[in-house]
Amino acid sequence: MYKNQQLVEVCFSPRQFDLYKGQFDICVVIDVLRATSAICAGIENGLNSVIPVATIEEAAEYQKKGYIAAAERNGEVVEGFDFGNSPFAFMDPKLKGKDVVLSTTNGTQAINTAREMDVVVIGSLNNLNALSDWLIEQHRPVLVLASGWKDKFNLEDTICAGAIVDALIESHKFKSEEDSSIAAKFIYRSAKENIFSFLKASSHRRRLRRLNLNEDVKFCLTPNTSTCIPILKDGAIVKLEHEKIATQ
Amino acid sequence: MYKNQQLVEVCFSPRQFDLYKGQFDICVVIDVLRATSAICAGIENGLNSVIPVATIEEAAEYQKKGYIAAAERNGEVVEGFDFGNSPFAFMDPKLKGKDVVLSTTNGTQAINTAREMDVVVIGSLNNLNALSDWLIEQHRPVLVLASGWKDKFNLEDTICAGAIVDALIESHKFKSEEDSSIAAKFIYRSAKENIFSFLKASSHRRRLRRLNLNEDVKFCLTPNTSTCIPILKDGAIVKLEHEKIATQ
Repeated sequence: MYKNQQLVEVCFSPRQFDLYKGQFDICVVIDVLRATSAICAGIENGLNSVIPVATIEEAAEYQKKGYIAAAERNGEVVEGFDFGNSPFAFMDPKLKGKDVVLSTTNGTQAINTAREMDVVVIGSLNNLNALSDWLIEQHRPVLVLASGWKDKFNLEDTICAGAIVDALIESHKFKSEEDSSIAAKFIYRSAKENIFSFLKASSHRRRLRRLNLNEDVKFCLTPNTSTCIPILKDGAIVKLEHEKIATQ
Repeated sequence: MYKNQQLVEVCFSPRQFDLYKGQFDICVVIDVLRATSAICAGIENGLNSVIPVATIEEAAEYQKKGYIAAAERNGEVVEGFDFGNSPFAFMDPKLKGKDVVLSTTNGTQAINTAREMDVVVIGSLNNLNALSDWLIEQHRPVLVLASGWKDKFNLEDTICAGAIVDALIESHKFKSEEDSSIAAKFIYRSAKENIFSFLKASSHRRRLRRLNLNEDVKFCLTPNTSTCIPILKDGAIVKLEHEKIATQ
């Protein structure tokens, strides 16, 4: 066995964050449907930064100052905003080099919860392998924070969290001790051959299907379409340049 | 499809209870290792009642008044108390007809959290089929509350909760909409052929193995050794007499 194994654990919702934090250096925030998938897509496609804010009011303040602002609540674009959290909106070539302010139901709340950690990076199924490889390279304790749905457990974030745990443990450089991490890894392994079909019954899939957002769902559930790792720096999410964080 | 399906959902920890409550009539509290298994064993074996209290201090107060009092923290009997939450202690023939005050790390906290619901019953793997059959008979919305470990998710309570969801949904009289319930059912179905081995990696199994409590674990993980349904009445857990709750 590898001698100096680091912990990788999963927290199912921002509400549980205080029970898990403390012993971790790096936090991976996940909101597969759709905030963190959209952030990955945007940063990969040349956005300068995404500025995550908790409330609609804060997003509106930025908008008044001339920022491009996006806001989503309950799966829908909030009235008065340029767009919501559809990854396709974030891939618009017109956004290249721009900063976009974003407020969503779950994802940006989770990012705000994670702010107190040393390093906060953005995870999705889209950047799964690139992110996992980078985490293994860092070899520091990792907490994967699922955004969930309004503080509740959700399946798609758990599957993505389980995929990261699985990859890190396979490297033999990491171990998990929490039951949440064991469950997430187990659910991922059961789902991985067909995540789209596994999630058919999930509550958020149903919610987005009602809103005719199946194309978004397909995009978000496709692993490894991106090699981009978005990272939080001074309140804005930017592209990680692959220097070692540890040596900063 | 059955026309008037009722909800059965799973809440992974007392900390999440307020997010789920509200729309349910019956709460099933589960702490497989070991509080609710011990309560089932005690009531099945002739205890008059178990009085659940949150703190060690309350348990000590009852003890001063002459009650038999049991208290467990972190898997161990609290000094000065008659016993902890081992099911075998609750099956002692000398306890027949007696009332036992109990305070544990997780289970009695969860029971206290659930108190505000119309009906609170005690679930374990030991009384799985009897309890599920009774719940189906009631045909009212059911919330299964896992006690977890210090407000965190745990695997053994999730498996038991999933087993109840599975049985209720199989009756076609119930449905689940929450992702937590879907995940619990899925984990139960994967684990059910050999729960003991499935839980080998779980955090609480490790904890109890260190304390030489493997016999307790085996007892608690054996389904359907009891037909007893303990129910909370006026602050004490007593044996449910099989009248219909709905007609009370």
